[in-house]
Amino acid sequence: MTDISPEEAARHRDRMAKRKAVQDAEVAEKTIEKGLLIVHTGAGKGKSTAAFGLALRVLGHGGRVGVVQFIKGAWHSAERDALQAFGDRVAWHSMGEGFTWETQDKARDIAACLRAWEKARELMADPSVGLVILDELNIALRYDYLPLDEVVATLAARRPDLHVVVTGRNAKAELIEAADLVTEMTLVKHHFKAGVKAQKGIEF
Amino acid sequence: MTDISPEEAARHRDRMAKRKAVQDAEVAEKTIEKGLLIVHTGAGKGKSTAAFGLALRVLGHGGRVGVVQFIKGAWHSAERDALQAFGDRVAWHSMGEGFTWETQDKARDIAACLRAWEKARELMADPSVGLVILDELNIALRYDYLPLDEVVATLAARRPDLHVVVTGRNAKAELIEAADLVTEMTLVKHHFKAGVKAQKGIEF
Repeated sequence: MTDISPEEAARHRDRMAKRKAVQDAEVAEKTIEKGLLIVHTGAGKGKSTAAFGLALRVLGHGGRVGVVQFIKGAWHSAERDALQAFGDRVAWHSMGEGFTWETQDKARDIAACLRAWEKARELMADPSVGLVILDELNIALRYDYLPLDEVVATLAARRPDLHVVVTGRNAKAELIEAADLVTEMTLVKHHFKAGVKAQKGIEF
Repeated sequence: MTDISPEEAARHRDRMAKRKAVQDAEVAEKTIEKGLLIVHTGAGKGKSTAAFGLALRVLGHGGRVGVVQFIKGAWHSAERDALQAFGDRVAWHSMGEGFTWETQDKARDIAACLRAWEKARELMADPSVGLVILDELNIALRYDYLPLDEVVATLAARRPDLHVVVTGRNAKAELIEAADLVTEMTLVKHHFKAGVKAQKGIEF
């Protein structure tokens, strides 16, 4: 593989020099600085984990991060344990009561979501916070546990320097419309199909 | 929204109780414990960030994590800075020399990938490491900078308790075949299209 002729090396160099010129021109065109509204949706894995990866990036720049979990509540979260390494630079609020099939109580689920949304608004209003992760907010919106119009309007009216990540399956069209960056995590292959159970460090 | 009739509450409770029974049965069927070979591919964002989110999860369980970056090299990485909070529980090796259009030198790119692969094999052989992230390995495989058969065979023959995450666009079919869990990050909407530049904390 390392046996490259001088001609091939030169062709490669020319091709890459052209590609670099295109890349540089594209980067130069983009000049707007703004906090982004980001949505991670889809049936695949990685929606919440990618949000926590972004948290690492913000923390690496010295910023502060707020997390509100709308569905997950009491159960143990390893990523939360890990982020304790950053002390009060991470404000983590698990406000959910568990999945709907765990609580089996719609009024309680709605009350939990409303409390979570209040906490989310509080974090978004805190100028020291650079990134707010609204984990599984899409689920709360899908079940109409929160008023969609108000939530989208509040997210759209966020501080100009605030990044917000919303996760969960079945993101509403109105939220996607308001977002700057939307990624759909698509399931290609899952080990559960092969009888493999949820693995420590991966699923929990 | 919190105005739920007793009948509706009861119907909800019944529906959720049935759903819980189905969920519990599904979980009980899955009994295999194993380290997973995970692939994050696709043109969307979140491939590497989701891998670093998994790192947090493993760290939260007290485990150790190895990272090898096959393409990214010299440039500043905020997630790397953040993970320094975990001291020697994270072994981070940026072995790349930058994108192909930056180096413009194919022989140098190949040599860097071969060194990165050696480091990857070393981390995978270390029994204290629970998760190895092979960041952008898919790019090295796509350009045939590494021998696909050997890489896939080595990943497939990993220790039974080792999780490996491979990231990058255009994952090879042979790697997807060998993997336990494959997620495609699909681009739905990107702020670059609206002239917004790469944002601190999000892209870097």
